[in-house]
Amino acid sequence: MITIGEIAAAAGGRVEGDDAFRVRRLSSLKNAEADSLAFYAGGRGAKDRALETTAAGAVMLRAECAQRFPRHRVIVEDAYLAYARASALFAPPPKNCGAHKTAAIAPNTSVHKDAALGAYAVVGENSVIESGVNIGAHVTVGADCVIGRDTTIESGVHIGARTRIGARCRISSGVVIGAGGFGYAENSAGGGVQWERIEQLGGVRIGDDVDIGANTTIDRGALDDTVIGDGVKLDNHIQIAHNVRIGAHTIMAGCAAVAGSAVIGARCRLGGRASVLGHLEIADDVHIHADGFVATSIFQAGEYSSLISAQPAEKWRKTAAHIRRLEQLAEKVKRLQRACPQPPEQGGKNQ
Amino acid sequence: MITIGEIAAAAGGRVEGDDAFRVRRLSSLKNAEADSLAFYAGGRGAKDRALETTAAGAVMLRAECAQRFPRHRVIVEDAYLAYARASALFAPPPKNCGAHKTAAIAPNTSVHKDAALGAYAVVGENSVIESGVNIGAHVTVGADCVIGRDTTIESGVHIGARTRIGARCRISSGVVIGAGGFGYAENSAGGGVQWERIEQLGGVRIGDDVDIGANTTIDRGALDDTVIGDGVKLDNHIQIAHNVRIGAHTIMAGCAAVAGSAVIGARCRLGGRASVLGHLEIADDVHIHADGFVATSIFQAGEYSSLISAQPAEKWRKTAAHIRRLEQLAEKVKRLQRACPQPPEQGGKNQ
Amino acid sequence: MITIGEIAAAAGGRVEGDDAFRVRRLSSLKNAEADSLAFYAGGRGAKDRALETTAAGAVMLRAECAQRFPRHRVIVEDAYLAYARASALFAPPPKNCGAHKTAAIAPNTSVHKDAALGAYAVVGENSVIESGVNIGAHVTVGADCVIGRDTTIESGVHIGARTRIGARCRISSGVVIGAGGFGYAENSAGGGVQWERIEQLGGVRIGDDVDIGANTTIDRGALDDTVIGDGVKLDNHIQIAHNVRIGAHTIMAGCAAVAGSAVIGARCRLGGRASVLGHLEIADDVHIHADGFVATSIFQAGEYSSLISAQPAEKWRKTAAHIRRLEQLAEKVKRLQRACPQPPEQGGKNQ
Repeated sequence: MITIGEIAAAAGGRVEGDDAFRVRRLSSLKNAEADSLAFYAGGRGAKDRALETTAAGAVMLRAECAQRFPRHRVIVEDAYLAYARASALFAPPPKNCGAHKTAAIAPNTSVHKDAALGAYAVVGENSVIESGVNIGAHVTVGADCVIGRDTTIESGVHIGARTRIGARCRISSGVVIGAGGFGYAENSAGGGVQWERIEQLGGVRIGDDVDIGANTTIDRGALDDTVIGDGVKLDNHIQIAHNVRIGAHTIMAGCAAVAGSAVIGARCRLGGRASVLGHLEIADDVHIHADGFVATSIFQAGEYSSLISAQPAEKWRKTAAHIRRLEQLAEKVKRLQRACPQPPEQGGKNQ
Repeated sequence: MITIGEIAAAAGGRVEGDDAFRVRRLSSLKNAEADSLAFYAGGRGAKDRALETTAAGAVMLRAECAQRFPRHRVIVEDAYLAYARASALFAPPPKNCGAHKTAAIAPNTSVHKDAALGAYAVVGENSVIESGVNIGAHVTVGADCVIGRDTTIESGVHIGARTRIGARCRISSGVVIGAGGFGYAENSAGGGVQWERIEQLGGVRIGDDVDIGANTTIDRGALDDTVIGDGVKLDNHIQIAHNVRIGAHTIMAGCAAVAGSAVIGARCRLGGRASVLGHLEIADDVHIHADGFVATSIFQAGEYSSLISAQPAEKWRKTAAHIRRLEQLAEKVKRLQRACPQPPEQGGKNQ
Repeated sequence: MITIGEIAAAAGGRVEGDDAFRVRRLSSLKNAEADSLAFYAGGRGAKDRALETTAAGAVMLRAECAQRFPRHRVIVEDAYLAYARASALFAPPPKNCGAHKTAAIAPNTSVHKDAALGAYAVVGENSVIESGVNIGAHVTVGADCVIGRDTTIESGVHIGARTRIGARCRISSGVVIGAGGFGYAENSAGGGVQWERIEQLGGVRIGDDVDIGANTTIDRGALDDTVIGDGVKLDNHIQIAHNVRIGAHTIMAGCAAVAGSAVIGARCRLGGRASVLGHLEIADDVHIHADGFVATSIFQAGEYSSLISAQPAEKWRKTAAHIRRLEQLAEKVKRLQRACPQPPEQGGKNQ
């Protein structure tokens, strides 16, 4: 049970009602009960009736909407941001219990006395686990790694040698950091093609406040490090290849992929499944829509897309056939233009 | 060795030949040997010679094809379905051996005496492992979870807190259920964009008879639960984001992805790599073809597609260039229509 | 510290300078220091100044570029291939330390005395771990498996029953081999659709010198084995479904996917996210570009593509709208051709 006074303090708002009113859970307006805190992200012009009909005991909302909710209010500037901050008060704290008796820690490793290691965690030589770190069960941390303070690593994460992770990061289950990048030299000496492995000698460097979603992979660099900037947020199933560099506060949704040696700017946004080819450069503040495939460098901030939304299959089958015949269609139009001359003022541009 | 009488009983068919004939393996017609059981999914009109040429000692097939196979027959209505049922007789049963001595079980957890826990399995507080459950090595089950009876969880699965899984499910290695959903509030107060984490307070609720393929991820909900209906089948590498709800008996092939808060109906089919954007609604009985990207809600049952099949690269390069210039092409056609007036009965529609 | 004489021996080159000159690291030309070895892949015509400006103490390069670098040289035919071979000298060797005391090895398993098993590794019954094998922490190897000599399996890999892996392979963390393929028979007897599981009775067979990237999945076959040929290289997040067969020396970049029962030839190249539908056949020496989606068999060697690169979103929105209306555009052109007859020599072909 948390008082809405505490909520207001965390969310940077002020209470209209009883500071000492206690809420038990954070809920959507629709599913809220009398002991719920909810939030309302709409503004003055909104036409919904969500505030009027909710059962919530308290709501975080903007001042301009206050009169629409008759019970305890937490007045904030940005209700969604207030929701983010309030959510932290309701999350169960990670358990800080020191090293589990089954954790296997190599001799030269420094584990801070405040840090927690889960069952069967394994930490390699010459690594440093800083204060407040929380490492889950079945995590492996390789040799020569640093895990920065207050970082949480959930169960089943595998971190290779020479990985440095900053402070306050959160790494979800199934993540693999520092696996060998995909580098091969072609050897066609014997007649056929053979691929000779290039050992990947670099590491991975991850900034502060980085979140990495479940089953995402970040390969180590070939010679230098793969670099993830401060505040980067990566969703699940993301692939970051070797030598990639990602600028601060860039965010990527699920299944995005960045091929080897690409350099992504700061504050970029990649939608779900968006992909960037290798060795490209993406400027700061570039937004790639979901499913967008980037095959050339982008030097200018802005939004980019190549998304084609699914259509009814019968209709799409015809459309796809027309796509395959586009060259012929353009050729027909060219012949028509020759056969059927147009007035110069219309035909003179855009050809 | 299994008798074809037992096969017929499991598959719902009847034997023509010797009930006591024993088979050692289930094989394709092509690779069958004299001690193999095979199946033939063709019907009366089929022109192949597979039945005539197979070495199988026994075959499951439809009555109308019986005369084409001279040895032991199991006559069934649906030979592919019969194959599915017979396959269960040949699969090695999971070993039910109780809790491995290295399994780490939290104090308040209830593990049924029939349940099996593999080496190094970890189960959190207040969780319930029901009868007949089979949990592999290196699995973690978080706090406040329920694993329903006869569910099998293969090695290396990570299940977060507040996950409830129904009966008879099968979860493959590398699956992550209940990781923190991808939720952030933008804070541009300091000038630049910063992403503030929204703690994900919901759980995951999975029905009965659900299969989940290797390395698939299902995030927990932000406030309410992420919900997977009864009988849902998910292949490998699938991404189910927070708050998603999937209706009963929906099936998704490898690498499909569903973004946050999307609601998918019952009995839907998503082909490989098919994707659904966040907050959309998909009706029951919708079939999205492989590689289809759904960017708007679909309210009507049926098939949908946006697949473009690869062409020879030289030809595709030209096609792609024409796609980029489609607007100009349409403009040329518009000018031609103005310059070259057409008879009204032809030009009057579809413009 | 390694002498450039040793480098030349490994890379198949010859030293110009001091054979005994020692280097401490392998670096890019740009980041090299005086104790670095670097490589230069350019040829005679290259116009860059990388060789003239590097601080490297030694460089591997072609004879025709030798005069551009004044210090120790290793003259080679193919500098990139030389780099691959030199990289092996700088990689820390895997530690061969026998079975960790926590490794759980089933009774009938044969583990060669030279093989190494990491902490908490689990090996099932009737499996064979050959000489020089290096198995990381938290790896599970199922029953009836063979791991060939000098193969390295990194931490957190899960290998199901009936998997045979050849010699000198490298399997990265998070890989799942031998999970149950995605096979179901539809049962619509009760009115609604139900999916009945087909138990997957085959295994996985992996050749020699195969590399498999982090979190990649390879399912076991339904009746026969899934087969990966010698020298195949798979990047991260790849999906290989049941019954797939991949020819020798084929290489696939991150997030590629091959659906069930597809057969891929030898020496093929699949770009990132390239996908192949089920039951198709792809000839030898086929190159699918990144993001290419293959929906029909390819019987001829060559390059194939369906990639559309992202454009500025405003422009793309219009292009996508024109794509949806392609059929109408083609119809307009057809009407124009009728309304505006063209000279036969121009209009007679390609319509």
